[in-house]
Amino acid sequence: MSEVAWQKGWWRKDLLSIKELSREEIQMILDTADSFKEISTRDIKKVPTLRGKTVITLFYEPSTRTRTSFEIAAKRLSADTINISVSTSSVVKGETLLDTALNLQAMEPDIIVLRHSAAGAPDMLARALKASVINAGDGFREHPTQALLDMMTVREKKGSLEGLLLAIVGDIAHSRVARSNIYGFKKMGARVRVVGPGTLIPRGIESLGVEVFHDLREGIRGADVVMALRIQRERLEGAFFPSEREYARFFGLSLDVLREMAPNALIMHPGPMNRGVEITPDVADGPGSVILEQVTNGVAVRMAVLYLLAGGTRGEDLH
Amino acid sequence: MSEVAWQKGWWRKDLLSIKELSREEIQMILDTADSFKEISTRDIKKVPTLRGKTVITLFYEPSTRTRTSFEIAAKRLSADTINISVSTSSVVKGETLLDTALNLQAMEPDIIVLRHSAAGAPDMLARALKASVINAGDGFREHPTQALLDMMTVREKKGSLEGLLLAIVGDIAHSRVARSNIYGFKKMGARVRVVGPGTLIPRGIESLGVEVFHDLREGIRGADVVMALRIQRERLEGAFFPSEREYARFFGLSLDVLREMAPNALIMHPGPMNRGVEITPDVADGPGSVILEQVTNGVAVRMAVLYLLAGGTRGEDLH
Amino acid sequence: MSEVAWQKGWWRKDLLSIKELSREEIQMILDTADSFKEISTRDIKKVPTLRGKTVITLFYEPSTRTRTSFEIAAKRLSADTINISVSTSSVVKGETLLDTALNLQAMEPDIIVLRHSAAGAPDMLARALKASVINAGDGFREHPTQALLDMMTVREKKGSLEGLLLAIVGDIAHSRVARSNIYGFKKMGARVRVVGPGTLIPRGIESLGVEVFHDLREGIRGADVVMALRIQRERLEGAFFPSEREYARFFGLSLDVLREMAPNALIMHPGPMNRGVEITPDVADGPGSVILEQVTNGVAVRMAVLYLLAGGTRGEDLH
Repeated sequence: MSEVAWQKGWWRKDLLSIKELSREEIQMILDTADSFKEISTRDIKKVPTLRGKTVITLFYEPSTRTRTSFEIAAKRLSADTINISVSTSSVVKGETLLDTALNLQAMEPDIIVLRHSAAGAPDMLARALKASVINAGDGFREHPTQALLDMMTVREKKGSLEGLLLAIVGDIAHSRVARSNIYGFKKMGARVRVVGPGTLIPRGIESLGVEVFHDLREGIRGADVVMALRIQRERLEGAFFPSEREYARFFGLSLDVLREMAPNALIMHPGPMNRGVEITPDVADGPGSVILEQVTNGVAVRMAVLYLLAGGTRGEDLH
Repeated sequence: MSEVAWQKGWWRKDLLSIKELSREEIQMILDTADSFKEISTRDIKKVPTLRGKTVITLFYEPSTRTRTSFEIAAKRLSADTINISVSTSSVVKGETLLDTALNLQAMEPDIIVLRHSAAGAPDMLARALKASVINAGDGFREHPTQALLDMMTVREKKGSLEGLLLAIVGDIAHSRVARSNIYGFKKMGARVRVVGPGTLIPRGIESLGVEVFHDLREGIRGADVVMALRIQRERLEGAFFPSEREYARFFGLSLDVLREMAPNALIMHPGPMNRGVEITPDVADGPGSVILEQVTNGVAVRMAVLYLLAGGTRGEDLH
Repeated sequence: MSEVAWQKGWWRKDLLSIKELSREEIQMILDTADSFKEISTRDIKKVPTLRGKTVITLFYEPSTRTRTSFEIAAKRLSADTINISVSTSSVVKGETLLDTALNLQAMEPDIIVLRHSAAGAPDMLARALKASVINAGDGFREHPTQALLDMMTVREKKGSLEGLLLAIVGDIAHSRVARSNIYGFKKMGARVRVVGPGTLIPRGIESLGVEVFHDLREGIRGADVVMALRIQRERLEGAFFPSEREYARFFGLSLDVLREMAPNALIMHPGPMNRGVEITPDVADGPGSVILEQVTNGVAVRMAVLYLLAGGTRGEDLH
């Protein structure tokens, strides 16, 4: 596997966004992830690849799921992991994010995985630090490893993303997952639609090369992949949409609605799901659903990213 | 050691309750624990037995003590450990326990250690997941590793549980520790009494084969082992008992009261102790007390359980 | 490296204070730290020195920074680490610190790193436990590893502490960092001044052999090292000082004020910094600042302390 990666050559220090990646880079990550996936199915799920490397997860927003996925990925590569979770209440008053990061840098970590509510925070750290920075979600901007695991999952099932039709349904305006996937699927040759109520789709999003639909059935008609986004309940109350119930009725994925999709279409969700709101249980657990495979591939994609960033300057075979 | 285990053959995927275990299974765990205990006294307290295995602790109720014991046990066997502590406030709204568990399962852990306030939660997960599930306490139902470490401690001191008289004192109604120990000690041939105020002993508990006492001196008369349960102070206020002080006076273990026990009787407590409430300091630190040995044996029992569940299908010598 | 240490012989079980250390002991720790520092710059930042040892961090006050430094230090020595963070709200009601510690001891850790708001808490544990205890800050009393990393940093830059003039500026009264550094620098032959408003300098501190100044310019005149302490904003409101702004004006380190220092003087800060309060950004990031080197040396010093305490009875070469 490493051969594939090294032949083409990985040179980035950081993974900040899908927007900045080339099609070749995305392919390189997905190929590497494919080859790492098998490790997690072994009896001894561990390779010494990143032994003696220090990976810090620095989360300014709670996310058990993403943190756990990174931590498992790092441990299966034998890296040492340090978890720092900064709840709003315990933030050290007066210290800036940059000072916190410079302090961590002084402890000589190899990789810092950052989740932060401010768009662009990972870029700022990446410029300031010698350590590699992985964006694990920044504000409403990007969540690149989520898009990579989504692309990996679709590629696995469909062979290629070229020419596929992806429909992303829900709160596009507040979704870094949507944004990263729009960039990613477009680069890989897919067509992308966004589907949702007018209040939840940002004006001018057509400039990203997507089609906008406000009717669910129309929006998913003929789609090869339908991705439901998680609805933040607090956003539904009043400001953006009348109610959860209303949302479910007009934009929830149900078996009935899904007849509009292409045959053998895939159903995706980044999790955690609100069953009965953006997706009904029979769809979530139905035959087209690849929701749990997304999670499995999440570990493989994160192993690949950790490996490429930490090992990028070497070139030896690390297996 | 492993020979003992494999000769008899361990076949369970999960450890959910003492109720479901046979006498032979309990003996197998205790024998395995006996042999693991020595590892923690070595200069290098670590064996490669579970290298490359992933153990997740998933705690929906806080418990530093039990989580730490499992984590140390897993690390001494060289497993990778991931801690997930879900406080009520940070529970992802809308996601069910089952969805959370299926997501974790998708990351291919080998063992999930679950503490949950709902009785039966571990059984539900065990049915749904490929990973082994260990019940680290479910509601008022069971806490099997606690009973196993208690049995290990008594067996170590007394040679056997056969024919011994155990008196469990305190809030039997709300105690999973009591329930697991009743099942365990009975299976191993001991007689069990429960002692406490009427409001804290569930009606019909005699059907489990125990004798009920409401007077402390009578209840512990002739007992070989007296186990004080932790009193939850919030339960004493009004509803179940007039006051902490009143409780201490009638059901607290003191040197004076303990004269009623058999000679060389053991004093146990699952911790954390309310000194001066359910137990006086001179009893807690006195000659019959094995309270800290319970903690030491907790690590050994958890190593044994992790080992049997993770290694149960192999059969090679793992040392 | 270990030769230096073993020739002189390290014999302490615990690291509780700088006050109790001899000049030779401090030198031994700093020499050991010097030799460990290089490990963190390797491609594989890990040595097997403490493999199979269990290090527990037990923090009763939040401190991401110090906990992380100890955790990284332990992991680079291959020890297993367990983090226990006891927020006030989740403290198990009714259990004493000593009972908590005795319970942890029963799980056979090698080292317990304790932070606690009560001065003397580490000493109490050290007497009661077989495990080594490291004081990671106790009340307003001592924070010995902070002083050791400060001394290491100054020694590295200046060759020796002998004859240097150190000025510590700020809230001396509530600073364990100040106290540990006063003991440490004095023992190593430096002169020490404390500088701050009368309300923040404890009466009688001259008995520790320091000079007291209430004027910043006078206090740092000719100093080779100026150490700004973190101001706890809550302490400024009313009781001890009129306002943050007032404090910055009279006791904040600025480029202008620092002209009073000796040439090539060092600027230190234990972090986290309140930029614009006790230190201006141009000073914090200026040429004399060794603030981030302090953090780097923190990992090395903690590796040294863990190593000496855990390995102190052996004598083999551990590299």
